[in-house]
Amino acid sequence: MDKISVRFLPDNLIANVEHGTSLLLAAASVGLELKSNCGGDGTCGRCLVKVQEGRPNVKSEGSISLKAKQSGLVLACQAAAVENLVVDIPQESRLDEHQVLLEEKDILVEKDDFLAAGYSLNPLCRKIKLTLSEPSLTENISDFSRLQSAIRNEIDCHDVRIGLSMLKGLAEVLRTGDWRVTVTVAQLNGCAEIINVESGHTDKPAYGLAVDIGTTTVAAYLLDLESGVTLCQKGTYNKQSTYGDDVITRMIHASVPKGLRELHTAIILTINQLIVELLSQSDISSDDIHLAMVAGNTTMTHLFLELTPRYIRLEPYIPLASFVPLVKAEELGLKINPAAQVACFPSVASYVGGDIVSGALITNMAKREEITLLIDIGTNGEMVLGNEDWLISVSCSAGPAFEGGGITFGMRAMKGAIEHVSIDPETFEVEVTTIGNVKATGICGSGLIDCLAKFHRAGIIDRAGKLQADINTSRMRQGDDGWEFVLVWSDEADSADIVVTENDIKNLMRAKGAVYAGIRSMLKAVQLEEEMIDKVLIAGGFGNYINIRDAVAIGLFPDLPPEKYTFIGNSSVKGARLALLSQEAYSEAQELGKKITYLELSNGNDFMDEFVSALFLPHTDMSLFPSLAANND
Amino acid sequence: MDKISVRFLPDNLIANVEHGTSLLLAAASVGLELKSNCGGDGTCGRCLVKVQEGRPNVKSEGSISLKAKQSGLVLACQAAAVENLVVDIPQESRLDEHQVLLEEKDILVEKDDFLAAGYSLNPLCRKIKLTLSEPSLTENISDFSRLQSAIRNEIDCHDVRIGLSMLKGLAEVLRTGDWRVTVTVAQLNGCAEIINVESGHTDKPAYGLAVDIGTTTVAAYLLDLESGVTLCQKGTYNKQSTYGDDVITRMIHASVPKGLRELHTAIILTINQLIVELLSQSDISSDDIHLAMVAGNTTMTHLFLELTPRYIRLEPYIPLASFVPLVKAEELGLKINPAAQVACFPSVASYVGGDIVSGALITNMAKREEITLLIDIGTNGEMVLGNEDWLISVSCSAGPAFEGGGITFGMRAMKGAIEHVSIDPETFEVEVTTIGNVKATGICGSGLIDCLAKFHRAGIIDRAGKLQADINTSRMRQGDDGWEFVLVWSDEADSADIVVTENDIKNLMRAKGAVYAGIRSMLKAVQLEEEMIDKVLIAGGFGNYINIRDAVAIGLFPDLPPEKYTFIGNSSVKGARLALLSQEAYSEAQELGKKITYLELSNGNDFMDEFVSALFLPHTDMSLFPSLAANND
Repeated sequence: MDKISVRFLPDNLIANVEHGTSLLLAAASVGLELKSNCGGDGTCGRCLVKVQEGRPNVKSEGSISLKAKQSGLVLACQAAAVENLVVDIPQESRLDEHQVLLEEKDILVEKDDFLAAGYSLNPLCRKIKLTLSEPSLTENISDFSRLQSAIRNEIDCHDVRIGLSMLKGLAEVLRTGDWRVTVTVAQLNGCAEIINVESGHTDKPAYGLAVDIGTTTVAAYLLDLESGVTLCQKGTYNKQSTYGDDVITRMIHASVPKGLRELHTAIILTINQLIVELLSQSDISSDDIHLAMVAGNTTMTHLFLELTPRYIRLEPYIPLASFVPLVKAEELGLKINPAAQVACFPSVASYVGGDIVSGALITNMAKREEITLLIDIGTNGEMVLGNEDWLISVSCSAGPAFEGGGITFGMRAMKGAIEHVSIDPETFEVEVTTIGNVKATGICGSGLIDCLAKFHRAGIIDRAGKLQADINTSRMRQGDDGWEFVLVWSDEADSADIVVTENDIKNLMRAKGAVYAGIRSMLKAVQLEEEMIDKVLIAGGFGNYINIRDAVAIGLFPDLPPEKYTFIGNSSVKGARLALLSQEAYSEAQELGKKITYLELSNGNDFMDEFVSALFLPHTDMSLFPSLAANND
Repeated sequence: MDKISVRFLPDNLIANVEHGTSLLLAAASVGLELKSNCGGDGTCGRCLVKVQEGRPNVKSEGSISLKAKQSGLVLACQAAAVENLVVDIPQESRLDEHQVLLEEKDILVEKDDFLAAGYSLNPLCRKIKLTLSEPSLTENISDFSRLQSAIRNEIDCHDVRIGLSMLKGLAEVLRTGDWRVTVTVAQLNGCAEIINVESGHTDKPAYGLAVDIGTTTVAAYLLDLESGVTLCQKGTYNKQSTYGDDVITRMIHASVPKGLRELHTAIILTINQLIVELLSQSDISSDDIHLAMVAGNTTMTHLFLELTPRYIRLEPYIPLASFVPLVKAEELGLKINPAAQVACFPSVASYVGGDIVSGALITNMAKREEITLLIDIGTNGEMVLGNEDWLISVSCSAGPAFEGGGITFGMRAMKGAIEHVSIDPETFEVEVTTIGNVKATGICGSGLIDCLAKFHRAGIIDRAGKLQADINTSRMRQGDDGWEFVLVWSDEADSADIVVTENDIKNLMRAKGAVYAGIRSMLKAVQLEEEMIDKVLIAGGFGNYINIRDAVAIGLFPDLPPEKYTFIGNSSVKGARLALLSQEAYSEAQELGKKITYLELSNGNDFMDEFVSALFLPHTDMSLFPSLAANND
């Protein structure tokens, strides 16, 4: 059947798609990403578009507001192209790149390098300038043997390998340069692999790419592997979002026909786009990137390599591979040097992935005597606890509440998101600050933590999280879903009244309870108490905004002195960078993948008891939160 | 431009070719191989065809006999298809498969296995039946880690690797077989590579392919790697012959545009055809072959891998690679399991290749105290001398005389070739025996050695190889090129009178002189005398026919007692088989590639002096041939 043309306005981009393709996928096919949390199920109501010409086949209205419907909008995921169309995508429906904060409050990239001290620069890939002896009748070993022995003189390795296609060109390259060559060599696992051979001595260093594949966002660093300098950092949304917002939805999509291929293609496209951006401000070409190091959660790593995540989702939750093979860039379609090696951080288990191993690496926690707790909160709360002698990890399904999911006015940490809240306990008047200091459009994770803490402190909710209907303020009112508290009135907001409902609070309580119960389960497993933790490191974008006092006040984090807490930003991409720059670090990452044990929380231990106990503010057992007990009582 | 159709008779095969393609290549494109020694230069005059319909563009007459011309024949290499043609290929012009002797006197395959004693069966590739523990919440390592550890329980290796494409299917394969799997593992260089994973326990063993790529013929063995049994052996001509008969012509062809690709494709097609034949009598599929071991001279190995042999030909004669990387069958287009590993024997130098290393392996010469001389004579005489402490090798350009090249009635050891000659020293009457006991059509190597020895003994030639015009027989006569001796009169031959010319004798003298000078040069380099050689092993098809006494009498081989000589047949393919069946042997082959030193004969040593001294029968220095001196004087 002939393809159908869908022209998207105002971009004027034309997608040529199969009959029946949804407008959401059609838009994605030309690089236009729409907001979507539900993976095209029609339930989140965010991918609104207006069809200007032609008529799509609308499968169902989906969760669309009356107002949107009256404005002639449809959900892109529910509208299939069955004839040529012209479709307008309103600004509000776009997952705009510019909303990914990369400057003022950078959720993707970090500048502080206080971590990972003690490693010296010994990159996984380097260029070596060699002047080979010219062959003669008495010195007539083969070209490749000649090159191998020259490389062995420069670096320590048990084997020097070359791929057949690289070998094919070697004779001419050596002779063109009159036996002077510049060889790009990757050293992983004790073996040197020749990635490239250039005639003559060239001055360009080898470049490396460090990538963190998050479920929501993807961050990449471009590194000069000779100097160790990070040349550029870029972040963007994971294009897989078109197929669902969270890991579980993606895994489900991976099991439909072509789904795995689509998710794989989406992440490769995402990274390729980042590569273009990273290179756009330099004279470096994509072929100059000779090594990529990728850290991501287990599912993301699977999808990156097009490995099925099917059994990650099903009990007993088994990844296809934790230690994945080295692959060549061309096998994946990654737009760097086709012969470049691509290495992925090992995973510990299905829900403790390479991103956490990367974080553990950069914290040096496996090299310290003191006990470190590493916390990375996204949809799952993933945590590692331990020191040089032992390391234990858990993953708890915190749910997407801290990322804005399942919360009426929840949103990611973007411009317009409420990040801090203060409430007068007498008048219940509210002051909020938003990211970008613009009118509020919703509430992000740090704002939600603030809400819970401040609501409790002002008596708006009780210890069980129940809204106190009897308090004297017009902000407390009955909404469609029961009682709700108005945080921002519509006249000060870039939307309707921004409210927090009792259901929102319940979701938040479950999220914070799961994280704390996970921490408690780990402590119990190793028979330690909270106060024995010497250091708590909060990783991830989420961590940068939150108020530690509030997070402790709601019982999300253990009641430890604030000075024990440190935010470490995107530790995943930083660990990937470290592994690129240090062979020692790369080896340690492999070791960490084996060394970190995994505590399965669904496995008949005390997690459920701990979880139920944690569904109070801060906890049923106040003795666990002595500083709060002292203050409040 | 439209393709041109050339129909070949009597086969009735149609080649659709580009305008201007030679009839030689057109025939090759549909699998019809014509005799050709010169690689399409028009100088050997063998690729005669008769154009029945249409008119080709004949570039030059080339070296065509008047008689052939009068019969309306043209040289296929000189005739280009510029319109549709019908072309008849006479039987005489065909390189007929059936002429490759595989039965009575088998030049390609051998049955005696007295060599290679002392190795136990420990194949490079095997199938392992595994029953994995089923994963659970408490035993939740990844699928791949589970498989790796089960394999490690069975075999000793420092790493278990898998390719990305194989990994992709692993999850389903494991579960389909309910955690019972049969894994095909190749173990080379201490690392186990997973070649295949099958659900359940299968009984089919892993199969292997041992290949000897000769310049002229290619031999292949199909092996059951579990039992070590050779299931089938096949041999055929190297399809590269279309592009030239000898290594040098092929190397020249490799340097023209597309030439390297053509030569590579030709050898792959040759091997693929052998594979089809090997499998045709069995229920084994090509996918069941999981490992191929290839031995060939350095140029053949280069062409097999599509590596340029350009610098092998030019001084100082440098191969691109002596130790070539392992490659996957699919990279080469070899029709076995696409993931099968393909290993090549290492070469020592440009003119001492993997076939010689393979021969040295199977002789066990590097493990014996006694001194062995291994001789392999083709176009080059390649020899290895040594014992457990040292090994030295040479290659001398013997020229193609012993293969029938450059000899008026020279031919390969095919049906109709004169293989033995006896001459009455009184009457000069000649008796010949031919291969297949048919009318003689030419003389092959063993017959030529016989001629030289018997001519000398009968006084037909003097010690310098000069025909004695004054002897009293009508067989001695003046031909177009000077004096010639009629070996077989036309009425007893399947051709005109079969003669040996003075020029033929000169070429034979040069060939035998080069081989002997090579042996002398090695001996001198290690300061040994002939009599210190304990054992002489004659490898290759050529060796099977020759009379050792005659070979010594003409000064081709050293004057040692006949019991020191042993024919070992195609030692190259046997060594390849051994390496497939024994990891120890494979490792030793790698070591041999390093251990055998190479003596470059063009390198200012005494080779030229030795060569000139050897241009007599048997030699200028009769003290080197004491047994002959005793008999003759």
